[in-house]
Amino acid sequence: MNSKKLGIIGGDIRQYYLAQSLMKDGHTVMIYGININNDDIKKSNSLKEILDFANYIIFPVPTTRDEKNINTPLFDKNIPLNSKLKALLKNKIIFSFNTLSIAFFKKDVKSEQIKSFDYNTEKFKILNSLPTAEGAIKIATEESKKTIKNSKSLVVGYGRIGKILSKLLYDLNSNVTVSARKESDRTQANINGYNIINTPNKNSNLSGYNIIFNTVPNLIFTKDVLLKCSKNTLIIDLASAPGGVDKKEAENLGIKAIHALGLPGKYFPKTSGEIIKSTIYELIKEYNL
Amino acid sequence: MNSKKLGIIGGDIRQYYLAQSLMKDGHTVMIYGININNDDIKKSNSLKEILDFANYIIFPVPTTRDEKNINTPLFDKNIPLNSKLKALLKNKIIFSFNTLSIAFFKKDVKSEQIKSFDYNTEKFKILNSLPTAEGAIKIATEESKKTIKNSKSLVVGYGRIGKILSKLLYDLNSNVTVSARKESDRTQANINGYNIINTPNKNSNLSGYNIIFNTVPNLIFTKDVLLKCSKNTLIIDLASAPGGVDKKEAENLGIKAIHALGLPGKYFPKTSGEIIKSTIYELIKEYNL
Amino acid sequence: MNSKKLGIIGGDIRQYYLAQSLMKDGHTVMIYGININNDDIKKSNSLKEILDFANYIIFPVPTTRDEKNINTPLFDKNIPLNSKLKALLKNKIIFSFNTLSIAFFKKDVKSEQIKSFDYNTEKFKILNSLPTAEGAIKIATEESKKTIKNSKSLVVGYGRIGKILSKLLYDLNSNVTVSARKESDRTQANINGYNIINTPNKNSNLSGYNIIFNTVPNLIFTKDVLLKCSKNTLIIDLASAPGGVDKKEAENLGIKAIHALGLPGKYFPKTSGEIIKSTIYELIKEYNL
Amino acid sequence: MNSKKLGIIGGDIRQYYLAQSLMKDGHTVMIYGININNDDIKKSNSLKEILDFANYIIFPVPTTRDEKNINTPLFDKNIPLNSKLKALLKNKIIFSFNTLSIAFFKKDVKSEQIKSFDYNTEKFKILNSLPTAEGAIKIATEESKKTIKNSKSLVVGYGRIGKILSKLLYDLNSNVTVSARKESDRTQANINGYNIINTPNKNSNLSGYNIIFNTVPNLIFTKDVLLKCSKNTLIIDLASAPGGVDKKEAENLGIKAIHALGLPGKYFPKTSGEIIKSTIYELIKEYNL
Repeated sequence: MNSKKLGIIGGDIRQYYLAQSLMKDGHTVMIYGININNDDIKKSNSLKEILDFANYIIFPVPTTRDEKNINTPLFDKNIPLNSKLKALLKNKIIFSFNTLSIAFFKKDVKSEQIKSFDYNTEKFKILNSLPTAEGAIKIATEESKKTIKNSKSLVVGYGRIGKILSKLLYDLNSNVTVSARKESDRTQANINGYNIINTPNKNSNLSGYNIIFNTVPNLIFTKDVLLKCSKNTLIIDLASAPGGVDKKEAENLGIKAIHALGLPGKYFPKTSGEIIKSTIYELIKEYNL
Repeated sequence: MNSKKLGIIGGDIRQYYLAQSLMKDGHTVMIYGININNDDIKKSNSLKEILDFANYIIFPVPTTRDEKNINTPLFDKNIPLNSKLKALLKNKIIFSFNTLSIAFFKKDVKSEQIKSFDYNTEKFKILNSLPTAEGAIKIATEESKKTIKNSKSLVVGYGRIGKILSKLLYDLNSNVTVSARKESDRTQANINGYNIINTPNKNSNLSGYNIIFNTVPNLIFTKDVLLKCSKNTLIIDLASAPGGVDKKEAENLGIKAIHALGLPGKYFPKTSGEIIKSTIYELIKEYNL
Repeated sequence: MNSKKLGIIGGDIRQYYLAQSLMKDGHTVMIYGININNDDIKKSNSLKEILDFANYIIFPVPTTRDEKNINTPLFDKNIPLNSKLKALLKNKIIFSFNTLSIAFFKKDVKSEQIKSFDYNTEKFKILNSLPTAEGAIKIATEESKKTIKNSKSLVVGYGRIGKILSKLLYDLNSNVTVSARKESDRTQANINGYNIINTPNKNSNLSGYNIIFNTVPNLIFTKDVLLKCSKNTLIIDLASAPGGVDKKEAENLGIKAIHALGLPGKYFPKTSGEIIKSTIYELIKEYNL
Repeated sequence: MNSKKLGIIGGDIRQYYLAQSLMKDGHTVMIYGININNDDIKKSNSLKEILDFANYIIFPVPTTRDEKNINTPLFDKNIPLNSKLKALLKNKIIFSFNTLSIAFFKKDVKSEQIKSFDYNTEKFKILNSLPTAEGAIKIATEESKKTIKNSKSLVVGYGRIGKILSKLLYDLNSNVTVSARKESDRTQANINGYNIINTPNKNSNLSGYNIIFNTVPNLIFTKDVLLKCSKNTLIIDLASAPGGVDKKEAENLGIKAIHALGLPGKYFPKTSGEIIKSTIYELIKEYNL
């Protein structure tokens, strides 16, 4: 890839490592809206400066939380999604995250002056499932005070995260059971070597698992189902908010349930920066940007 | 499951092991149209006898090759798909294989007297992918005269067979590369630890692989692509007929290409019998038969 | 095993989990010299009380650090290795750790009244290598901010810890290289699937590894060898003090080197308690105690 | 390594592949006493011709079976270990196999004119354990007609072969149990993820294993022990003659026991040739030959 001029605006420490990684590949990079102590990457003093400089703009993960401002947890000012920003973004190639339903980022069809690409792609999600799984395992050992080896674990759901998580647990010598709604997913899990059960319900026997990882974004662990778990079970809920566990009931029953979100950015920010980079590279290649 | 009366008609040695396995589970079993020396399973002397006896009839894999007779490689007579057979099958529950497009096995809607279930299900296919993969590895070592360890292998396609085959090769310490058409499949393969490339084409560099497994049922290995392989490459084509390799061109170029079909039945007939059994059990459970 | 009366004296949180685990197996347990908030295990008010109660006494890991007092990091008083203690231990079966060279724990041959067994056995060491390896991996991801997947790791030494550590790294999809002094160890590592090199020396090329785990208790990483590493390399030194890395030189060169000791107790205290338990059970069985 | 002149005398098809592999590395090679149809490697017409040509002589695996002649299964003449051969070998560097106790190959101390190196080294044995394990698995599937997946296997002995065999079985998703005499070996096997038991004896319960691999060269499977196995158990005995199974008793009891020897050469002759090559290279390097 030719050397490019890239501007990174807003976001957390991942965006800083993204900048580092882009520079290592020979690109020129400027950052704005990320206040960290560093002297290796050029900081812009204003939106105008960075947008004068860069042809490619990378917004953070997620790009906005309130649909009004860019997500800038490491910045003391707001960067509003307003017409001034829109004007500055004219003719730029923009990479944003989870913005498909946000008006600001939609192509202005009449003028076609803003070219925005959402990098929350299938590729991004698959790549992200790995640090999510490694992070979930990390939490499990920290909370259980036990090694994965000799554990008896249940992975609820066999999608992107369920697949790689059950593989890593198995490779670390946990006795792994996978639950899935679909017969074909269960069969696939089975030929990979895992025990299989149906999705937990009030008739399941769950007392033997010392760690349960939930990856399904439905309320599976209701009071009825929690009553089937052992009090010593640790539940790590990886499903996006509101999650799959009735936390109040878990607490009442003395079962520890942890809602673990954003693990890649939290535990592996360098890897996260590299995942963003490789996803953006893929978009550049695919759309010939 | 309650003890049932099952009749197994036609097929190869797998059906005999299926019968054995069903008996071990407490069912009563009779076979017809499978001439092997055995004294543990009751052989029927006629179609009528077995159909008088059994409520559940299991036809072979595949049930017919010519749409005229049941597939009976181990029998010296024909069992025609005719009205006599149809009459005898009245009120029976029938398990047949790959018969969805064959008129004989379609439900007679008016009378609803024949209840036929095709056991070439997704579950069957997934379960079968494992012995296919183990069988492919077996052939690879026999033909290459080398261990899998230290081999450099390419698995073309990342469907059911591609997935489990690449896993087994990797676990046996081959240096595994997977090719897939879809970016998301390649990414998934990559997070499982395999190298990835695009589907082989005339611009690919394939000279480093000593074994190539093709699982894609399209003509991928044309002369142009074969020219990119080393002469020492062994190609094992697992795609259903006509396969994915131009065999004549391979021969001209001195590249060994083996079309390997029906591996589960050929190499692991007992496992195959058990796979048929568990698929049929699943159908019985699902449809409450 | 029959229910026994066990007294646990001194030590860290592992000894508390050891007590819990022994109780689950049906033994009666009392602790002394471990001040933690708990109400599930009976605390003794004095040495005399616990030694009146118990027939089996378990001292901590290590049993003493100064050869004068029992190691009691969670206690506000000293428990001296004096004649008073010796008198109280008369006729008890004692499990102590790393005490073979400490006069106090040697059998009083004349009277044979103290029976002391050192539980720092080969079995203990092997079992402990697993949490050491899981802990080392934990530190590596925390310090590198990256997943193990996609890392390039070097494991120096192929003893107990080197073996299980390289296996776990490999299973987590690191590109693993093992170094060992002995040709046969390297060959063994190689057939397990790892790359192999000689023990690092001033002529090695080490620049490609982003994590180096040292398990060898010799000064291998001198200035000369550190100069062969990349500045971005993270070194995790698992060798017992003084370790295998010249820390001062590493610091001068800007290479992060972490001396990581006591990982099982630090990160997996419950597993550690179980390892102590199963080692002690083995001694009870072996010596018919 | 500089190009060398090598002569390969006697042996089976492995020695031919050894010759091929040496040529690929740039050496000049001549063979004698291996009658196969080939036109890629120069055949010598006489002992004198090959010994005039080569400085390095490689004798086969094993070099002799009767201590009188070179082992030449693919040759219609004898090559006796006589004074004529000894004279021709003067000043040559000789690689022989399992000849340490054979007078002919011992250094003639007075003249020191014959330099013989036995390549049955520890390295050779470790490298050979891998094809032995892959071969054992191959036999197991052929004889059982079942996949390794879903099998329940017992590996008796945890030496070189036991270690790699249990690993491969585990990776192919067998439920693996390892037996070993030594507690520390069992513990090591256990942290690798295998079930463990004591060495089979008349009190063992062995009925649950469908495949038993013996690697221990002692008579372990006596009648008493065989009575503890299921009739459906398949025993694959990998121990060198006379093996570890009372074959007559096994036959009486209807238990299939296969004495499987020489698997690397039988199933993986190319890999075997490469193993010989790398062992000889190691000797050349170590002794600066």
